[in-house]
Amino acid sequence: MQQFESVGDVKQLKHLIQKGLDMKAQPLQYESLGKGKTLILLFFNPSLRTRLSTEKAGINLGMSVISMNAGQGWQLEFEDGNIMNMDKAEHIREAAAVISQYADIIGLRTFPSLTDKEKDYSDFIFRQFIRFASVPVVSLESAIRHPLQSLADLITIEEHKTKARPKVVLSWAPHPRALPQAVSNSFLEWVHQTDAELLITHPEGYELAPEFAKDIPVVYNQREAFEGADFIYTKNWSSYKEYGKILSQDSDWMITPEKMALTDNGKFMHCLPVRRNVVVADGVLDSDASLVIQQANNRTFAAQAVLHDILSGL
Amino acid sequence: MQQFESVGDVKQLKHLIQKGLDMKAQPLQYESLGKGKTLILLFFNPSLRTRLSTEKAGINLGMSVISMNAGQGWQLEFEDGNIMNMDKAEHIREAAAVISQYADIIGLRTFPSLTDKEKDYSDFIFRQFIRFASVPVVSLESAIRHPLQSLADLITIEEHKTKARPKVVLSWAPHPRALPQAVSNSFLEWVHQTDAELLITHPEGYELAPEFAKDIPVVYNQREAFEGADFIYTKNWSSYKEYGKILSQDSDWMITPEKMALTDNGKFMHCLPVRRNVVVADGVLDSDASLVIQQANNRTFAAQAVLHDILSGL
Amino acid sequence: MQQFESVGDVKQLKHLIQKGLDMKAQPLQYESLGKGKTLILLFFNPSLRTRLSTEKAGINLGMSVISMNAGQGWQLEFEDGNIMNMDKAEHIREAAAVISQYADIIGLRTFPSLTDKEKDYSDFIFRQFIRFASVPVVSLESAIRHPLQSLADLITIEEHKTKARPKVVLSWAPHPRALPQAVSNSFLEWVHQTDAELLITHPEGYELAPEFAKDIPVVYNQREAFEGADFIYTKNWSSYKEYGKILSQDSDWMITPEKMALTDNGKFMHCLPVRRNVVVADGVLDSDASLVIQQANNRTFAAQAVLHDILSGL
Repeated sequence: MQQFESVGDVKQLKHLIQKGLDMKAQPLQYESLGKGKTLILLFFNPSLRTRLSTEKAGINLGMSVISMNAGQGWQLEFEDGNIMNMDKAEHIREAAAVISQYADIIGLRTFPSLTDKEKDYSDFIFRQFIRFASVPVVSLESAIRHPLQSLADLITIEEHKTKARPKVVLSWAPHPRALPQAVSNSFLEWVHQTDAELLITHPEGYELAPEFAKDIPVVYNQREAFEGADFIYTKNWSSYKEYGKILSQDSDWMITPEKMALTDNGKFMHCLPVRRNVVVADGVLDSDASLVIQQANNRTFAAQAVLHDILSGL
Repeated sequence: MQQFESVGDVKQLKHLIQKGLDMKAQPLQYESLGKGKTLILLFFNPSLRTRLSTEKAGINLGMSVISMNAGQGWQLEFEDGNIMNMDKAEHIREAAAVISQYADIIGLRTFPSLTDKEKDYSDFIFRQFIRFASVPVVSLESAIRHPLQSLADLITIEEHKTKARPKVVLSWAPHPRALPQAVSNSFLEWVHQTDAELLITHPEGYELAPEFAKDIPVVYNQREAFEGADFIYTKNWSSYKEYGKILSQDSDWMITPEKMALTDNGKFMHCLPVRRNVVVADGVLDSDASLVIQQANNRTFAAQAVLHDILSGL
Repeated sequence: MQQFESVGDVKQLKHLIQKGLDMKAQPLQYESLGKGKTLILLFFNPSLRTRLSTEKAGINLGMSVISMNAGQGWQLEFEDGNIMNMDKAEHIREAAAVISQYADIIGLRTFPSLTDKEKDYSDFIFRQFIRFASVPVVSLESAIRHPLQSLADLITIEEHKTKARPKVVLSWAPHPRALPQAVSNSFLEWVHQTDAELLITHPEGYELAPEFAKDIPVVYNQREAFEGADFIYTKNWSSYKEYGKILSQDSDWMITPEKMALTDNGKFMHCLPVRRNVVVADGVLDSDASLVIQQANNRTFAAQAVLHDILSGL
């Protein structure tokens, strides 16, 4: 891989999932591969899981890791041709080119505006960075995708599936704040490449972008969607149609033990952080059906598989 | 040790002090013990000495160290059963469990509210974290204790004592802000386990919590308390009785050369940071009697002794 | 070197430049020199290039590197004898002495007030730190100098010069904010030690401090100054005479392709970050004449040369 932005950058998905499982079995088996190599992680948004798991992945591969929070006192200009006499002190052209010289691989987290749909869905900030970077860039979540999360999710499904073709349901759930569609988009994009039976359930108006929703069946009745499911992947997102808007906070969409009982002994998944008793009831999160802690653990090995792949090609 | 929260977690105090001195003599003697192991330091309050000394301790033992400041844009819920529809984005149950998967040992700093005595003295936040963590947790100061500071203090006393049974005085001193009782509580708890003669002096109303003050003599006349002392350990704290309140800012309680002259060539100790000419006069801090820089140095070796003990048992 | 604050600390400038080029040719050749040694970088101002390049330099030399942003919730007192009953929680005497115990080398960035000329030009904060530190201190920019930048600049000039005695022009350019004189001061101080022909051009009123400007010719006509130049080193600075003031934002001083055409195929240099189309036109920055990305790259090797020199003497 030259970069890691979407499932489209993955040559053989099964192979990458297997590599993640191999890393988990023996995390330090490639501890000298990254020796003398530097991984710089750049966050335009604060991060807990992504920072810790990706740092750990780099360290496990013998890399030196440097994390930086951007944005605080360091405003970047992303537009070309502007007269930079306002608050932006540096252009992405210089910033990306300069950081590339200090790093062998860059991890980058950006975020959507949730107001400018066109710019967000062109992944403007992320792509401007890639355009001017001269080393491989790994997405640590962009405006519209979260590929390391998706890979960790597929590793987790691989570990816990009991059927060759499990039924996987992506379910919307309520949340007090307007959230990006990135995790949901990305999850669809990745699971769509597997043999799983994929289904989406959400209130009307929460249809995801056509390029991610594709022809995946949407069932507006959440209980109906849950019937016989093997995995319930839950996530809130704001509306794509009425871009960035909260259309519903209907608590009837919360994931409960009663709804999980409709599944075929289904597992509960969520990328975290999760709001208890808003997105999902305590009774689900604290049950054996919950895989959220395992998903977070697999973030390390997803990152390690991707970094290993990139390092091998340097 | 499985965790390090109070002197109660220490099997043999003399042995641990000696281990600290050994580490100081040869800081890199165990530089491969922590190879492939990760230490994550989590600060709910900013830190200078604790962060640097504990990072250094981990590095000296060959560990990878990752430090994170919590709180900024990452509010945790600590109460069970709440509907999380306000500002708290993640529950301690998930946060502690997830971070445990990225770390072999976690260092944690929490802080008291200074308003809710009951919750502070149950060490609520610290204990909630430990409850849901799955790896050893080392206190980098909690609401009511600062055990690594206390261990560093005992190492320093061990280095500088000239009698088998030195007279150690814990003296309150004025300060413009309301401060926790943690350092003082912890110091009493640790010194009480040694052969030292221990005495407390403070204005009336500043009595410490009974579980820490125990039957240690309190002398309300500071000058009387100082007579013949070998070590003057100075610290401001807010009132325990009128919880979190400042009852006095009487500058007559400041430590001065004139008061130090009452001691038996006594040494001045303070955990730092210290407010010059408020807590203690320049003339004391800048004299040979001051051990404050040595105490700070010993923070590294205190942490290293504790981490070594935990690593040895992993 | 015992410390690195100005060109005056350098024994043989040519040798240090050559060491930088050697480091660039084989960055990991001394990867065990710094083993077991700790580099602490302390920033009183946020930093991108300096932090990343100096961390990288330390890592390349096998050091452990810890970076800290000071100032946030950690106010230092720099004046002696004060009664510290306001917002400053710690005195530089303790802070510098304590950090020295955790570090083998300290990197320090301070900043001018731009209001108190006398204090700034005594480099008060930087010198107070050095006064109380017990290990070598490397300037990562002080109120009046930026020596690692200057060394990187000389390395870059060495790589790109086509004449034994190139004509080097320091040109002021407009900027919306009041900026320090440190980069310009330092550049003059360093280039003055070489064989280059050095010239300054700026609007009247922007004369630099006499101790840095010395007898270097000043030409108030920018176009005249550019004629036949080999290197155009551009930087905004606020007035030294009317200390810290912005006297001009005249966009006619911006560096343009038309002005670069007056040079002898001259190269454009800037320390970054740079405001496009304010300080310099896109057409210059995006041309082959621009060396700004190479300068930033050489920051790593400048730092590595200095750290190598200090480490060799420890």
